[in-house]
Amino acid sequence: MSQASGVVQTRYRVLYGDVDAMDVVYYGNYLRFFERGRAEFMRDLGMTYKQVEEQGFILPVTEAHCHYHLSARYDDLILIETRIGQVKRASMRFEYQIFQDEDGRKPLAEGYTLHACLNPEGRIVRLPGFLYDLFEKAGGKT
Amino acid sequence: MSQASGVVQTRYRVLYGDVDAMDVVYYGNYLRFFERGRAEFMRDLGMTYKQVEEQGFILPVTEAHCHYHLSARYDDLILIETRIGQVKRASMRFEYQIFQDEDGRKPLAEGYTLHACLNPEGRIVRLPGFLYDLFEKAGGKT
Amino acid sequence: MSQASGVVQTRYRVLYGDVDAMDVVYYGNYLRFFERGRAEFMRDLGMTYKQVEEQGFILPVTEAHCHYHLSARYDDLILIETRIGQVKRASMRFEYQIFQDEDGRKPLAEGYTLHACLNPEGRIVRLPGFLYDLFEKAGGKT
Amino acid sequence: MSQASGVVQTRYRVLYGDVDAMDVVYYGNYLRFFERGRAEFMRDLGMTYKQVEEQGFILPVTEAHCHYHLSARYDDLILIETRIGQVKRASMRFEYQIFQDEDGRKPLAEGYTLHACLNPEGRIVRLPGFLYDLFEKAGGKT
Repeated sequence: MSQASGVVQTRYRVLYGDVDAMDVVYYGNYLRFFERGRAEFMRDLGMTYKQVEEQGFILPVTEAHCHYHLSARYDDLILIETRIGQVKRASMRFEYQIFQDEDGRKPLAEGYTLHACLNPEGRIVRLPGFLYDLFEKAGGKT
Repeated sequence: MSQASGVVQTRYRVLYGDVDAMDVVYYGNYLRFFERGRAEFMRDLGMTYKQVEEQGFILPVTEAHCHYHLSARYDDLILIETRIGQVKRASMRFEYQIFQDEDGRKPLAEGYTLHACLNPEGRIVRLPGFLYDLFEKAGGKT
Repeated sequence: MSQASGVVQTRYRVLYGDVDAMDVVYYGNYLRFFERGRAEFMRDLGMTYKQVEEQGFILPVTEAHCHYHLSARYDDLILIETRIGQVKRASMRFEYQIFQDEDGRKPLAEGYTLHACLNPEGRIVRLPGFLYDLFEKAGGKT
Repeated sequence: MSQASGVVQTRYRVLYGDVDAMDVVYYGNYLRFFERGRAEFMRDLGMTYKQVEEQGFILPVTEAHCHYHLSARYDDLILIETRIGQVKRASMRFEYQIFQDEDGRKPLAEGYTLHACLNPEGRIVRLPGFLYDLFEKAGGKT
């Protein structure tokens, strides 16, 4: 992560299995790109999402939004940029920008996901201090 | 379609391949449910999306939003309810509600997609009259 | 199920999200069709795969094979025909044929999956009597 | 590629969206891993599959087989090893081994795909000389 910017970059090569009949990435698959982005964001912070779960917290998506500008195509190398947005008592927001990484970082899409913080029984709980601190250090607005 | 309500209902049985490690449908797959909903909405109107393309118009998603309430699980029968929302000169909006269809129509998620109207060269064009009329008759706010 | 034939038929409408850049169903998605076929086969037998799991048995795929003849395309209605094949002490085989259901049942693909019988700890166990009997009645070669 | 071995290695991090309710990678997704493997195999040879298509040849999968040993899980880093097998006049075979890359290369699955060589009209044609030579150099049995 660039500490200055709070952005984590991840790259992904588009498969045949990702695109649809228009030879563009199927719109639902951008939510997979978002997941890949936030997984690498967490790993980069020093705590994987798997470790968060092992600590007894789950962070399910409660809302997802994607705005599509241009289309990624088969075999494109795409760049996923992930940031942490607003961090609240029991929820947080990740923000994503997707670029084609080959001809000068052409912007393809952008979006966000909102997440609740739940305990293993599925009840909403306060974000534990260790996550709150991590997200704040990573640039989250608290 | 219930002519009164402008709603088209579609059912889908959740596969193992649709759920993730929490035994809930992966969040990205709701956008597949939305696609299924609007495909059946169009078929119900009397013109499939394939026929729209054959007429020389494509309606790509420019924005997608989903709000997740409760989780669909493996082998659940889900109900997708689709409506047409605002219809503009060169764009339109579909709205979706997802229910679990077994214990009293439990609401699971809701969302919308915005679509542009393009010609085969990818240029934004006015919605053709036949689509505008169809969408209006189906309850679209024009 | 036609008791005579031991075949269960399931239909599925192909989504944009199922096809790839050649406008044909992505080859990996046929394994989803196989899953849909065997889920409906089990339901038709009177015991869903979910109920099998609730009885303490899991039937993971140990081998999958698919032979592709012709391609399913966007918006095709496909027909999945599922049969039970050889049933052994601790394993069984499902067999599938995929057809396009619109112009005279054009054969698209065929294949099979082999399944082990495991207990919840992941150890291979003998097929329980109730499953063995069900599969035998459904036409499985024992 | 290790010229000695004719093997190309590709790594992939397992997403939540790849696993199913048993917290193991969905069996159909191994065919995506195979595609990723052969895409990188081709790129490593110096000619991407996209370039093959641009030369007027398509290589659709006519048969796929996968044997599952152990399960990849969420957040596993997997290693895909790809080789070229038999190369015939109008078809070829790719072979794959999938490992978990973290605790000593645990073997997870292995399989193969057979491919026909078609022209853009979908007719079977002889493999062009440039592909035949490439595959032979990469270790294909001719």
